[in-house]
Amino acid sequence: MQKITQALVEQTIKKRAVHTHKGSFGKLLVVGGNAQFGGAIILTSSAAIYSGCGLVTTATDPSNFASLHARLPETMVIDIHQQTAITEMLKKVTGVVIGPGLGETTLALQTLQTVFQSIEASQFLIIDGSAIDLIATHTLDLPKAHLIFTPHEMEWQRLSGIPIASQTESRNKQVQKQLQATIVLKKHHTEIYTDAATYQLTLGGPAMATGGMGDTLAGMIGGFVTQFSNTPLNAILSATYLHSFIADELGQSQYVTLPHQIIKRIPQVMWQFSNANH
Amino acid sequence: MQKITQALVEQTIKKRAVHTHKGSFGKLLVVGGNAQFGGAIILTSSAAIYSGCGLVTTATDPSNFASLHARLPETMVIDIHQQTAITEMLKKVTGVVIGPGLGETTLALQTLQTVFQSIEASQFLIIDGSAIDLIATHTLDLPKAHLIFTPHEMEWQRLSGIPIASQTESRNKQVQKQLQATIVLKKHHTEIYTDAATYQLTLGGPAMATGGMGDTLAGMIGGFVTQFSNTPLNAILSATYLHSFIADELGQSQYVTLPHQIIKRIPQVMWQFSNANH
Amino acid sequence: MQKITQALVEQTIKKRAVHTHKGSFGKLLVVGGNAQFGGAIILTSSAAIYSGCGLVTTATDPSNFASLHARLPETMVIDIHQQTAITEMLKKVTGVVIGPGLGETTLALQTLQTVFQSIEASQFLIIDGSAIDLIATHTLDLPKAHLIFTPHEMEWQRLSGIPIASQTESRNKQVQKQLQATIVLKKHHTEIYTDAATYQLTLGGPAMATGGMGDTLAGMIGGFVTQFSNTPLNAILSATYLHSFIADELGQSQYVTLPHQIIKRIPQVMWQFSNANH
Amino acid sequence: MQKITQALVEQTIKKRAVHTHKGSFGKLLVVGGNAQFGGAIILTSSAAIYSGCGLVTTATDPSNFASLHARLPETMVIDIHQQTAITEMLKKVTGVVIGPGLGETTLALQTLQTVFQSIEASQFLIIDGSAIDLIATHTLDLPKAHLIFTPHEMEWQRLSGIPIASQTESRNKQVQKQLQATIVLKKHHTEIYTDAATYQLTLGGPAMATGGMGDTLAGMIGGFVTQFSNTPLNAILSATYLHSFIADELGQSQYVTLPHQIIKRIPQVMWQFSNANH
Repeated sequence: MQKITQALVEQTIKKRAVHTHKGSFGKLLVVGGNAQFGGAIILTSSAAIYSGCGLVTTATDPSNFASLHARLPETMVIDIHQQTAITEMLKKVTGVVIGPGLGETTLALQTLQTVFQSIEASQFLIIDGSAIDLIATHTLDLPKAHLIFTPHEMEWQRLSGIPIASQTESRNKQVQKQLQATIVLKKHHTEIYTDAATYQLTLGGPAMATGGMGDTLAGMIGGFVTQFSNTPLNAILSATYLHSFIADELGQSQYVTLPHQIIKRIPQVMWQFSNANH
Repeated sequence: MQKITQALVEQTIKKRAVHTHKGSFGKLLVVGGNAQFGGAIILTSSAAIYSGCGLVTTATDPSNFASLHARLPETMVIDIHQQTAITEMLKKVTGVVIGPGLGETTLALQTLQTVFQSIEASQFLIIDGSAIDLIATHTLDLPKAHLIFTPHEMEWQRLSGIPIASQTESRNKQVQKQLQATIVLKKHHTEIYTDAATYQLTLGGPAMATGGMGDTLAGMIGGFVTQFSNTPLNAILSATYLHSFIADELGQSQYVTLPHQIIKRIPQVMWQFSNANH
Repeated sequence: MQKITQALVEQTIKKRAVHTHKGSFGKLLVVGGNAQFGGAIILTSSAAIYSGCGLVTTATDPSNFASLHARLPETMVIDIHQQTAITEMLKKVTGVVIGPGLGETTLALQTLQTVFQSIEASQFLIIDGSAIDLIATHTLDLPKAHLIFTPHEMEWQRLSGIPIASQTESRNKQVQKQLQATIVLKKHHTEIYTDAATYQLTLGGPAMATGGMGDTLAGMIGGFVTQFSNTPLNAILSATYLHSFIADELGQSQYVTLPHQIIKRIPQVMWQFSNANH
Repeated sequence: MQKITQALVEQTIKKRAVHTHKGSFGKLLVVGGNAQFGGAIILTSSAAIYSGCGLVTTATDPSNFASLHARLPETMVIDIHQQTAITEMLKKVTGVVIGPGLGETTLALQTLQTVFQSIEASQFLIIDGSAIDLIATHTLDLPKAHLIFTPHEMEWQRLSGIPIASQTESRNKQVQKQLQATIVLKKHHTEIYTDAATYQLTLGGPAMATGGMGDTLAGMIGGFVTQFSNTPLNAILSATYLHSFIADELGQSQYVTLPHQIIKRIPQVMWQFSNANH
């Protein structure tokens, strides 16, 4: 496996060109958050916006609108029950994150299918959390798109059929090829399986072991691939790297690092990396 | 075009006189924010209050009340469905911002017409976002008032009929005269068209290219014209200048600068400018 | 008039005795905040809690519960429609603040009467904002209690019948005696009329001229009189003093000082004053 | 009585092992918060998450969801009316905190019984606030579990039948044995009664005497026992110690220390203690 290097991240997060506007940095639709798991979608949406995505819209249960906007006035919302509004928004975005806090109800499944039916081959689709489990437990045709799965080991077991103890590089790689997707396998030293090489993260520590970390990573990946859409693999690797890089920084003075603390640090750390070679 | 200078801003933001009260610094009505775009009106209202406007009232969808007050207890609210309450409030205010997150529904159009019918020639009316598009797509008589439009280039194309590529100073100026309004044309190096000269902003950078920046500027302009109502043109120029000035400051350590971060810095930066010559 | 001195404040804010518990520092009921003016009651309740009041309960419109708790989990809430719950709570508290954002509806008037009927002579009753106007416009018997009115000049005109231009010390004093209340007349150099002397504040500046300042002061007075209940006059004077003292501190680097910023500084500044002589 | 020492806390908060994930640090169900006392459950849930508990779920009145998530997106929620969902969640968690802001309605009693019926002997059950009073006033069989009661002196009087003035070590110890529980008796120099020794806290001061402190301690104990489940007594002692340790730190510059301020400091202070001997 190749290690993700600091140099790769520095090359990916380029200084922004002067003549740009919010449309230059991608549009993202974030789909998830039922009444029980609304916090997840707040974290995902926040991570995308703090990562610099130009415009973020969040399709979620209306019971989450107030808390989402109280924390993040910069996002727009869609009632997840309005499937037509989701379909319409899909025509405008660079990518989609689906799954954080989505749950596995009929509505959740229907929403996943709505996204699968409308997404285009040119768009990015990050599949996280509940959406992974829905795919693992239902017969669904995966759409043609830039697919990115972000399972933790147990979700990967359910999706790939490979028991955790047997999740070796070669077996994981095999399923990655079948799925025609990039796999971000979250674990101690997260592994990223791609059509080309396999990558490994060497950062991260136990201070990150708390709920919401995965939702945050999904949002960062969404923000990075829509923004750095010409180098999507590097975008995925960089998001994964910085997520743990920030956590490690915070972990030098905190016993546990909370997801929202990581999110707030993203703009500063991206600036540092974008300026490293200048 | 004339460049907006730091000296102009320093002259505009005068030290406050000792014998003043909140009524001395203007009253603003902010109108916008449907259920989907509630974040926009939070940003606009916040920007007005942090700019020092004496009293701000926000007419918006009731689903936005909780998030608005959770972020900004200093504002008062009106249910946007209560058109009579809007009309009553119009009698009390120095100015109105209409448009951020307003949407283009029948209610949105009706609300715009309510404001148009009741506003007086002495009042300021900042027309932003959805309100610009409503005017572009409906036959509406503009009211007699101090009109200020804040379009980005695409909105200006829809309102003026001038394609973006053809938006030259002379053609823009022509439409400005027809509209009998001040035009804040938001773009890289924003241009301000007035009855007198045309002004250009030399600040601002790509770290500002994220959703909600325009909503924030509309709120700052609203807060500045109601507060510095004796020098409204300077107020508009100063709000536009400081919006980007703060973003540039933050952009020295952030890859992206979020609107709410800019808003929180306004009181400090206004203080600096008000003390520059003392 | 006597000036309120720093020494008086230092004597009032005594170091807390070691063997105390939350019951030692008073209980306050804050009543106000209809659906339109919910922000006011957030500020009042917050000011009371940050001032060190042992327990605060807020009776307000239920539409304000979410924003109130999002900002201030330390308060408890009562639905203002449940007049019996208000009556029950009145039996337990040291004092009441009524008025901020209360409005002047039938419910508002009824709530004021509920408080008037149940309050005891030993309790403090701070009457602010809408509650002052309700008294000015209705024939109500004031209850026997430690009454504290906190009008600004226009509210005082309506309550006392003295036009602003004629609000001299002697005329104000006359009405104060009739009301058998302490009057905190908010203005540039606020004046406090008491059964004994008349006091004047020498602090405060135009950076405070923004909505919500009065709601904040009402909460501070509520928090101070319930906490320093053995020296209620000194408590009122000290709350008034510190409210402007903090604003002046913030005003050294801010063009406008927002009420919530003042509130957050209260614990530190009280600590400084409590330690001044030690 | 034994004093709780800094050394004990340092030994308890071990450096986290590298190969861990959120499941390694326990799962907690927090139950409480009716419509009136929603703030309490926000504080309890926040304290648990900032203490490093791996996963926290909050069963509360739905009217509290928005404010809870606005402050704490890292938690998941259950509508407290859905008793089956509570039962299901009980099968997955390491421990439960029940009581903060629960109230004493029929629903509250039913919820307490639901927890009592489903909890297993291996699980931790922290019983706080209203839940203590419900037990004191109803005939309920206590379940077999690691029971931890966190009464203040008046609640202890109601639960134990011992008047405050007579709450001596020996009498308290007697009831502790009957209850087969650990008792955290909150007072000036809190006492912890266990099957083995009795412990005393020597920290804490009057700046802590404000509403919500107990809710915060209950959440910290919940976060500590589920996380340090191999040394539950040390976990309880350490949570109690750090709660006051942080308050004392803040109390060096604040007249009153608010619960949410204490909560935010937990990760830093735990880090310090975990690194004390390294």
